[in-house]
Amino acid sequence: MDESVLIVGSLAYDSVSSPAGSVENELGGSATYGGLAAAFHRRRLGINSVGIVGVVGDDFSDQDRQLLLDADLDLSGLETVNGKTFRWTGSYQGSMAEAETHETHLNVFEHFEPKVPENWKSPTITFCANLHPLIQKNVLEQSPPSRLSMLDSMNLWIQIAKDDLITVMNKVDLVIINDGEVRMLANDDNLVRAAHHIHSMIQSTYLIVKRGEHGVLALLPDGIISLPAYPVSEVIDPTGCGDTFAGSIASNLSKGTGPIELGELRVALEVATVTASFTLESFGTTSLVSLDEVEFQDRLTEFRRIIHG
Amino acid sequence: MDESVLIVGSLAYDSVSSPAGSVENELGGSATYGGLAAAFHRRRLGINSVGIVGVVGDDFSDQDRQLLLDADLDLSGLETVNGKTFRWTGSYQGSMAEAETHETHLNVFEHFEPKVPENWKSPTITFCANLHPLIQKNVLEQSPPSRLSMLDSMNLWIQIAKDDLITVMNKVDLVIINDGEVRMLANDDNLVRAAHHIHSMIQSTYLIVKRGEHGVLALLPDGIISLPAYPVSEVIDPTGCGDTFAGSIASNLSKGTGPIELGELRVALEVATVTASFTLESFGTTSLVSLDEVEFQDRLTEFRRIIHG
Repeated sequence: MDESVLIVGSLAYDSVSSPAGSVENELGGSATYGGLAAAFHRRRLGINSVGIVGVVGDDFSDQDRQLLLDADLDLSGLETVNGKTFRWTGSYQGSMAEAETHETHLNVFEHFEPKVPENWKSPTITFCANLHPLIQKNVLEQSPPSRLSMLDSMNLWIQIAKDDLITVMNKVDLVIINDGEVRMLANDDNLVRAAHHIHSMIQSTYLIVKRGEHGVLALLPDGIISLPAYPVSEVIDPTGCGDTFAGSIASNLSKGTGPIELGELRVALEVATVTASFTLESFGTTSLVSLDEVEFQDRLTEFRRIIHG
Repeated sequence: MDESVLIVGSLAYDSVSSPAGSVENELGGSATYGGLAAAFHRRRLGINSVGIVGVVGDDFSDQDRQLLLDADLDLSGLETVNGKTFRWTGSYQGSMAEAETHETHLNVFEHFEPKVPENWKSPTITFCANLHPLIQKNVLEQSPPSRLSMLDSMNLWIQIAKDDLITVMNKVDLVIINDGEVRMLANDDNLVRAAHHIHSMIQSTYLIVKRGEHGVLALLPDGIISLPAYPVSEVIDPTGCGDTFAGSIASNLSKGTGPIELGELRVALEVATVTASFTLESFGTTSLVSLDEVEFQDRLTEFRRIIHG
């Protein structure tokens, strides 16, 4: 099998402050976190390739490009154009459940038109990270995957492009969104009822609701999976956690064939939860990049003991 | 074995409104919910007896007394005094995570001095539901249990009697409090770190953190347990959920001997989570009182499938 995972999303320079400190112009973005997480599992599972499609400006550093190449990410879909890379500034306070955005400069990302390279026209998995739903739709048309299409989204698209979002949700196999977005989309404060409502409204086979520090709820045609988060005592920076989670799922689901089974998705969710827990523990991609197999496996074993005994 | 569970707490008349409707002067209180839940598991597990210690006014109805007797609760510790029964009025909105209290009339509960009957001086389990910490301390002195002492508390005691609360926490084997209370007590927004801090500060062997719709986190000397909640779509009235949870734990831990083992506590937490999910589904004690063994067992099986596969 030539398993391959394509991730389309943003590459960014983030400036983040949290009770643990602050950083400026750290490499970030959904394709970065998703790609690095998928690449970690590529090495672990022996998957053929992980590619990212995105755009950066001419200020994107050689060092950051090398970091992505060192993770063996295929960058043939990474465009460099004149201008500045997407920049985001935000902060976390209190329980750090939600970021407060201070500044967003889309820069070259504003007119991003993903062009999927020839050799990526039929990956095993296509994951559209958070983008305008119409761009996600376009990506899916360019690279229909052999096994599974996935998308993530955000509250902004629910507010300004709800119909387009629902259209593209109907076209993918797996939708990942967070608890607040499910509540907003269903206009229902009860998360469980809201998730059932959205799952029955869209054609997507799998609905995965990220609940941050409260874990994950997944609705499948033949059952429900609910997992707590891995209990992290020292949260440094939650930025990229959701993308780490999604990229890990994409990579882990690229291994099998046929419809995703409940047990297979459960393993992917456990693995993704544990991978995301590392992202929390440093600013930027530091802990994700330096994550090694033994450290990961130890925490996965511990997590399974916490939830299953 | 003559397993016996003693529960000391309030009996009340609650007036509650939620998005699902409203009720007035429904039987409630921590000893009521805790007692009824413990009694359900008494029948299921073949435990010898469950008794409650509390106080009601002369307005307490024969019908409500009969409801408790029909559950085979030992009411020898239930005092009736001149005056009115404790009354609470509250409402739930939005995600219904927290009650808003409109009125509290302690009435006869204000000067409650628990008197443990002679035949309850050495139960298997003593559970002090939410009461002033000094009253909890007094109860524990009156009825030192042979296997396990437990307490629940509330934010009020952290605010006005923190030292007394910590003193009595040091005297029990198992402390159950909710996530907001753990954060408040540790003065730390990170729940996991706050829980570890409290667990290492107090002498109690087991710390159980109730997280409402987000499940439960338990810290033991030899490990951690984390469970999601049972996913309930139709929350009618969360009143008494925490007491149902605690009473279920008390009953389930009365069966064994020696120190509580991790696997034993895990089963008790799963069982308690499922029992509490029924309490949510009606106003007052209705669904808890009418709960039957088959319905319970079916949901427990379903819950285990959701969390373990």
